[in-house]
Amino acid sequence: MQSQHIMRSFDEELRLLTNQIGGMGGYAERMVEQAVAALVSGDAALAKKVIEDDAFLDEKEREIGEKAVIIIAKRQPMAGDLREIVGAIRISGDLERIGDLGKNIAKRVAAVTEARQPTRLFRGLSALSDLALTQLKEVLDAYASHSADKISFVRDRDEEIDAMYTSLFRELLTYMMEDPRNITACTHLVFCAKNIERIGDHATNIAETVYHIVTGTVLPPERPKEDKSHKIVAPTQQED
Amino acid sequence: MQSQHIMRSFDEELRLLTNQIGGMGGYAERMVEQAVAALVSGDAALAKKVIEDDAFLDEKEREIGEKAVIIIAKRQPMAGDLREIVGAIRISGDLERIGDLGKNIAKRVAAVTEARQPTRLFRGLSALSDLALTQLKEVLDAYASHSADKISFVRDRDEEIDAMYTSLFRELLTYMMEDPRNITACTHLVFCAKNIERIGDHATNIAETVYHIVTGTVLPPERPKEDKSHKIVAPTQQED
Repeated sequence: MQSQHIMRSFDEELRLLTNQIGGMGGYAERMVEQAVAALVSGDAALAKKVIEDDAFLDEKEREIGEKAVIIIAKRQPMAGDLREIVGAIRISGDLERIGDLGKNIAKRVAAVTEARQPTRLFRGLSALSDLALTQLKEVLDAYASHSADKISFVRDRDEEIDAMYTSLFRELLTYMMEDPRNITACTHLVFCAKNIERIGDHATNIAETVYHIVTGTVLPPERPKEDKSHKIVAPTQQED
Repeated sequence: MQSQHIMRSFDEELRLLTNQIGGMGGYAERMVEQAVAALVSGDAALAKKVIEDDAFLDEKEREIGEKAVIIIAKRQPMAGDLREIVGAIRISGDLERIGDLGKNIAKRVAAVTEARQPTRLFRGLSALSDLALTQLKEVLDAYASHSADKISFVRDRDEEIDAMYTSLFRELLTYMMEDPRNITACTHLVFCAKNIERIGDHATNIAETVYHIVTGTVLPPERPKEDKSHKIVAPTQQED
């Protein structure tokens, strides 16, 4: 009886942890959405809200980390349960950094919108952000449902995000070269684009963690692909 | 006798963990140093080495994380010992990301040096990197010696790094405006500068973790200071 009680309460602790991660995930998604919306519409008040919101994710990450350590020390969980708890620590870290990246986009809103920029500058960024947010939503769904089915798509989409970022980088450089008055805003936009690309990377990290939690194995190494990092030769053509 | 044996072996485990962090720290420092050296001298071979080196820190972080969890589950450490172990996980995470940032600088070497850039473009970056590396060295010393004495200086220097980064950002924008042929290289250099500024942030995180390990308390909140993030109004004047 006592042991059953302990078991149940352990399950409850795990469920609580999982729910908190789900809450953090939704919060981080919204922050990124609102940061990009603030950028595109030049909405300083919304940007301010996003900047302030970030403290919540910092606090949550700390809280989950502390809780997880207490559970590990108290329960000495094995195998699947241990993976679940360590996974929660990792995922909360990724979500906290997604929040930071959203906040950093929000911080650049004033500088970008100071001189009203042509809409075309933002079009690529919105598309990139939509793709990264879709990525994030799907990995959070996979986490909530403990499903490893969709994980393989995640890496493909991450490549798509990288490619779209590279093309956006090139585009923004072109705008700068066309008109020096675009330089400051476009430099900030390049940072925003990079932040979104990194949000995609964190979503991919989460996918890998989910895969490990669910299957107990590490996602097989990526198939050989063109590694752009070793051949950045044409400066206006490539970025990673 | 048995208990003493366990105690000793626990201490050994802790010492091993601390040594591994020290090793990671020295490795991360060298990566950043070499990445910046490769950038300044346009040394593609050195850049390639740094990019390859990064895998070591990824592996080490994973290893330390796994070891730490096993120690927590097996030993159920309390108070100072638990802080030490959780601190090791945090610090290894910061060092791993410092390695990523060094790698990202190395990846940009080809694009920056493709068209030979005037030396003055690199001067500010070298100075910024020196400052961030001094910061990193000192926090690693504080960790190795379990000393909280120097921690208060770390935040001051972090502000200094931020200020130098902001000024470098402005300077690089000016070079772009002066001559559109500088745009691509300078955009990459702005990213490199941002990476170094973030290395400073990670060093500050480590300082805070060391303070917590040593004293068991959280470093008091920073004194009120000008928070630049809320007032980025003059796009060519400010950056954070």
